[in-house]
Amino acid sequence: MADNRQLWAELGIDLDRHDVLLGGLGPAYKEIYLSQKDRPRGMGFYDFVVGDIHGIRVHELQEHAKEGGKVVATYCVFVPEELVWAAGAIPVGLCAGAQFSVPIAEEVLPRNTCPLIKSSFGFKLGRVCPYVQSSHLIVGETTCDGKKKMYEILGRQQPVYVMEVPNKKGPLGRALWYGEVVAFKDVIEKLTGNEITAEKLAEATRKVNGRRLALKRLQALRQATPAPISGKDGLLVNQVSFYDDVTRNTQMVNALCDELDQRAAEGRGVFPAGAPRILVSGSPMAIPNWKLHHVIESAGAVVVGEESCVGTRCFEDLVPETGGTLEEQLRAIADRYMQIHCACFTPNDERLDDIIRLARETKADGVVHYNLQFCQTYASEAVKVEEALGKAGIPLLRVETDYSDEDAGQLRTRVEAFLEMVRR
Amino acid sequence: MADNRQLWAELGIDLDRHDVLLGGLGPAYKEIYLSQKDRPRGMGFYDFVVGDIHGIRVHELQEHAKEGGKVVATYCVFVPEELVWAAGAIPVGLCAGAQFSVPIAEEVLPRNTCPLIKSSFGFKLGRVCPYVQSSHLIVGETTCDGKKKMYEILGRQQPVYVMEVPNKKGPLGRALWYGEVVAFKDVIEKLTGNEITAEKLAEATRKVNGRRLALKRLQALRQATPAPISGKDGLLVNQVSFYDDVTRNTQMVNALCDELDQRAAEGRGVFPAGAPRILVSGSPMAIPNWKLHHVIESAGAVVVGEESCVGTRCFEDLVPETGGTLEEQLRAIADRYMQIHCACFTPNDERLDDIIRLARETKADGVVHYNLQFCQTYASEAVKVEEALGKAGIPLLRVETDYSDEDAGQLRTRVEAFLEMVRR
Repeated sequence: MADNRQLWAELGIDLDRHDVLLGGLGPAYKEIYLSQKDRPRGMGFYDFVVGDIHGIRVHELQEHAKEGGKVVATYCVFVPEELVWAAGAIPVGLCAGAQFSVPIAEEVLPRNTCPLIKSSFGFKLGRVCPYVQSSHLIVGETTCDGKKKMYEILGRQQPVYVMEVPNKKGPLGRALWYGEVVAFKDVIEKLTGNEITAEKLAEATRKVNGRRLALKRLQALRQATPAPISGKDGLLVNQVSFYDDVTRNTQMVNALCDELDQRAAEGRGVFPAGAPRILVSGSPMAIPNWKLHHVIESAGAVVVGEESCVGTRCFEDLVPETGGTLEEQLRAIADRYMQIHCACFTPNDERLDDIIRLARETKADGVVHYNLQFCQTYASEAVKVEEALGKAGIPLLRVETDYSDEDAGQLRTRVEAFLEMVRR
Repeated sequence: MADNRQLWAELGIDLDRHDVLLGGLGPAYKEIYLSQKDRPRGMGFYDFVVGDIHGIRVHELQEHAKEGGKVVATYCVFVPEELVWAAGAIPVGLCAGAQFSVPIAEEVLPRNTCPLIKSSFGFKLGRVCPYVQSSHLIVGETTCDGKKKMYEILGRQQPVYVMEVPNKKGPLGRALWYGEVVAFKDVIEKLTGNEITAEKLAEATRKVNGRRLALKRLQALRQATPAPISGKDGLLVNQVSFYDDVTRNTQMVNALCDELDQRAAEGRGVFPAGAPRILVSGSPMAIPNWKLHHVIESAGAVVVGEESCVGTRCFEDLVPETGGTLEEQLRAIADRYMQIHCACFTPNDERLDDIIRLARETKADGVVHYNLQFCQTYASEAVKVEEALGKAGIPLLRVETDYSDEDAGQLRTRVEAFLEMVRR
C-alpha cells in the first residue's frame, strides 16, 4: 500500500480524494460481490483485481513506461486495440462507472450528459484515476455527441486523438472508416516509434482474438441451465478485460471456463434452476457500475448475458486471421469493427436481431433494456427494440437510470414487478 | 378559410387538433409581434405569412404537386437545397418550435430529447403539419444523435432519406461529404425524374445565393445604431426563409432592407439608441419559438443577430458561382456546406471566432448563449464559448430552456440581471 501511494503521488493523483473513492469501493464490493454464495473459484482472481484496482496493474503500466513503452487509453470498443498491441503499446479502457466523480465533472460538463461520460471526465478532472494519469495518449471516437464534445475539453488536459466512426455503414462510411484505421496506425507508430509490421499485427490479432474467444466461451457457458455463474460475476469478467493484459486475461477467463464446464456438466448452478433468466441489453456498464445486475439478482433472477459494449458487442466478432499483407489485415480489422451493432449507426436494425438471437440462445425469460440517462442513441433505439421484442413475444422492461442511488427503490420495485410477470 | 380546411382534410390533417394549434398561434403572435411599436412596413408581408401559415404556401405546394412537382422536406441547413431547386422540386424546412406537439412526441420519443426534435416529430405524429403531409421525401442528416435516431422512427410513417454529415472536417470527412452530395443528387433526380444539369444547378445556385445575400444585407443593417429593426422581426425573417419560395423571399427581404436602409440613414431605430445590444448564439429557433427574443426585448434590449442555423450559419457563406462542369459545381457546393460551423463537428473552434467577430460587428454589449434542453453538442460547446468570450472580454449569459413556459419567470429574471450588468 505504501508502494501504491508513492506511485499515485508520482502520477499526480489527488491522494485525499482518491482515498475517499477507494474507501467506498471496498464495502460496495463486499456487499455486492463477496456476499454471493457458491461463487466459482476462478473469481478469486477478479476479487484480487478489484481489491487492488489501482495498484498492481498500474505498476505494470509504469514499468512498461519506464522501459520506453507507451500506454494508450480508450473509451470505446471501436478503437482497434490490435494496432496498439502490435506497436508494443498497452491499451487500457477508461470508461468509469462511479457516481463519485460525477459532481466533479458537473463543474464543467452539462448536467444533462450521460453518467458514464461525466464519471470518466470527473476521474481526470479530479485526478483520481491512475490509468488516465499513466496514459501517453487518449484515443476518443465519435460514437455519441456527449463523448465527441467531451474529448475537446479533455484535450486541454492531456493529448487526445479522435477517430471518426461513421454514422452510416454504406460504402462511403466504410471507406472513411478504413481511412481512419490507417490513420490510427500512423498515429500509433509515431507515438511509439515502432513500425507495425504484418507479422506483428497478425500476432496481436491472434492475441486479441484469443481473449474474444475466451469471453465467447464464457458467454456460451452462461447459457447453461441452471446458470453456472452469476450475472454480476459475468459482467465483472467483461469489465476487467478492458484493463488487463490480453494474454493473462485470456488465461484467466479460460481457467474460469474450465471450472464452469465442470459445473455445467454437474448441473450445478449459482441460482436455483427455476430462477428467471434475464438478458440485459443497452448502454455499457463500466466498473464499478453493478447497479442493475445487483438489483436483478437480489430479486432472485440471474442475468445470463449483456448485449452491450461491455458484453457481446465487444467480443462476438473476431478479426479474420487472414495473415497476408498489412493492407489486407487492416481491411480485415476495419471490416470487423464495422460489424459492431452500436446505436451510433443509422439504421442499426441488426442489433434488434442480435437481441432476439441472444435472448433465445441464453433461454432468457425476459430482456431488461438498460439506458444510461441522457444516452440519446440507445434511448431512441429502445423504441424499436420494444417493437421488435413485442413481435417476437419476448417480455421487455425498459430502464433508464444513472449512477446515483436516488432511484434504487423505484428500480427495485419495477424489476421485481417485471420478474413477477416473467416468472414461469 | 373553408378552402384551407378542405386542403388540410385532403392532406390527412387532424382538423380538431390543428384548430387548437392555430388557435394558440394567433394570440401569441399578436402579443409578441403585433404589440411592437414602429415596425418596418416590410414586416407586413411576414404578418401575412404567419397569419396564413398553413394556408397559401401549402396551396402553392399542392399546385406544384398536382403538376407532377415534388416537395422535399428538410430539418437542417446541411441539406443542399440548390440540388432540390435545380431538379424543379421545392424544399421546405420542417423544424418546429411549438410546445403544442411536444407531449404528442413524448408518447414515442424519450423525454430527454431536445424540444425541436420532439416538436417536429409530434407535428408528424399528431398530423398537424401540412408541410410534412405535402412532402414526397423527408431528407434527414446525422448532425446530432437525437435527430439521427428520430429519423429511423419517422421513416416508418413517410419516406425518409438520411445524408451523412461527417464528424471531422479532415480529408476523409470531406471526401465522404462530397460523396453524400453526389448521392443526394442521384436521389433527387430519381425522385423528380428530372436531370440536374450544369445549367440548372448554376441557376439554382444563383437563386439561393441571392436569398443568402439578401439575408446578409439584413444582418448588416442590424449592425446600425440604433437598430432599425427588432431582433424578433429579424428572427422571423430568417425563420420564414425556410418555407418561402426562394425568389419571392429574396424580393421581400430586399424590399425590407431598402426600407431599413432609409431608417438607418435617418438614424431611426425601434429601440432607444442606448438600449443594450445582444447577440444570440447557439441552438436554432424554429417558428414559433420566439421565447428568448421576446424575453430579451421585453426587458428593453435589442437582439442584433443570431449566430444560429436560423441565422448567420444559414446565410453567411455563398456557394462560389464558378459555373463550369457539374462536378466542379458539386465540389463547390460540398465545400461550401463544410464551412458551416455547427457544433456537430469536432473540433469546431471556428465557431468561437465567429461569435467573437459577430459580437464585434454587431457592436453587441453581450452574448446570450441559447441552448435547447438536451441539445448535447451546443451544451458541451458552451464550455468553450464561455472560455473564449471571457478571454475576449465579452459578457456572456448561458441559457438552457425548452419550449414550455415553465421557466419563463426564471428566464426573465436571469436576462434582466444580465442586461443590468452589461448596460452602459
